[in-house]
Amino acid sequence: MATEQHHLTFTTRGRGSSEITDDIAALVGQSTLSAGLAHVFVKHSSCGLAITENADPTVRQDLETLLRRWAPDGDPAYRHDLEGDDDMAAHARSLLTGCSLSIPFADGKLLLGTWQGIYLFEHRSHGHRREIVLTLLG
Amino acid sequence: MATEQHHLTFTTRGRGSSEITDDIAALVGQSTLSAGLAHVFVKHSSCGLAITENADPTVRQDLETLLRRWAPDGDPAYRHDLEGDDDMAAHARSLLTGCSLSIPFADGKLLLGTWQGIYLFEHRSHGHRREIVLTLLG
Amino acid sequence: MATEQHHLTFTTRGRGSSEITDDIAALVGQSTLSAGLAHVFVKHSSCGLAITENADPTVRQDLETLLRRWAPDGDPAYRHDLEGDDDMAAHARSLLTGCSLSIPFADGKLLLGTWQGIYLFEHRSHGHRREIVLTLLG
Repeated sequence: MATEQHHLTFTTRGRGSSEITDDIAALVGQSTLSAGLAHVFVKHSSCGLAITENADPTVRQDLETLLRRWAPDGDPAYRHDLEGDDDMAAHARSLLTGCSLSIPFADGKLLLGTWQGIYLFEHRSHGHRREIVLTLLG
Repeated sequence: MATEQHHLTFTTRGRGSSEITDDIAALVGQSTLSAGLAHVFVKHSSCGLAITENADPTVRQDLETLLRRWAPDGDPAYRHDLEGDDDMAAHARSLLTGCSLSIPFADGKLLLGTWQGIYLFEHRSHGHRREIVLTLLG
Repeated sequence: MATEQHHLTFTTRGRGSSEITDDIAALVGQSTLSAGLAHVFVKHSSCGLAITENADPTVRQDLETLLRRWAPDGDPAYRHDLEGDDDMAAHARSLLTGCSLSIPFADGKLLLGTWQGIYLFEHRSHGHRREIVLTLLG
């Protein structure tokens, strides 16, 4: 039993989601651990992580539509707007998506379902440099 | 310290939630690990897992009412509707509930509160065969 | 590789969030584990845990505004209202925030981002005694 930790950096291109399944799967594939959990953690409060459908990109477009509805940009009720209309909306989206995921693995492979992909959601309007910690326990 | 993994299958009967606490607790009870984490992962993007109140079934009926409000079936804004009105709604509900849970255990017992139960939420209208991976780490 | 478990109790003062980062960090600092995951679990279905922005308290005020919008108190659609207008709203907020968090650590320190704090969200109107289980795996 052991712990392995990796630090990854992704540069986002503004609001939207990008798949990081292959990045995580590659490090799981190189691990000496035979089975366990892959824990993905993003060190920010204005982006998020989610597992969702990986076949049809309109799923993630529709999730974007709903996130915009649930946490509107520039809502008049917000008090926190130092960094613009997307500032508080990004923190609210972060609450809904969460900032970590954990996925079981065995024999060097993530035990994801056929239609599941791991996505980094940028919740700010503009692109940012986003740091992720991958912890493998097993 | 070790990892144990179990594969479970549940057949749902359409939208709604069913308690799986006893199924998880039974495997924790058989474990040789003295303390650690039980991680429950569902390998699908159109159902979910949540811990909620286990005494009054109207709590889960009300959660259903809210999920329907948050992610309406057949919303005209959706682009993804290949499999019907409940298709995109199911993916959106999956984002909100999440597809994994982790619960501490010790001495063969889940450390759940008195009023907490573990539920599999079917987000599609019709029943499906749902695969779960239980990983025990400790 | 080992597991450490701690039981913590917090007394909340009614709806709102309180930072518990230092409490978790202190126990991580005392751990003999060199790296791993800190798992925080709240044993209740009417409060929650979330990681959010730790600099400007208006962020958490705005999250409160949104939680109130997403899960209104005393909504006429609720069937579960035994304990008052905030009863079902609290369970719904618990679904959205979740009841557990996991954060990577190394060398006695949580690997949180600069602007991330760990918060206990009381979802009921009145204060409660809330039990938390902290599991350190590594």
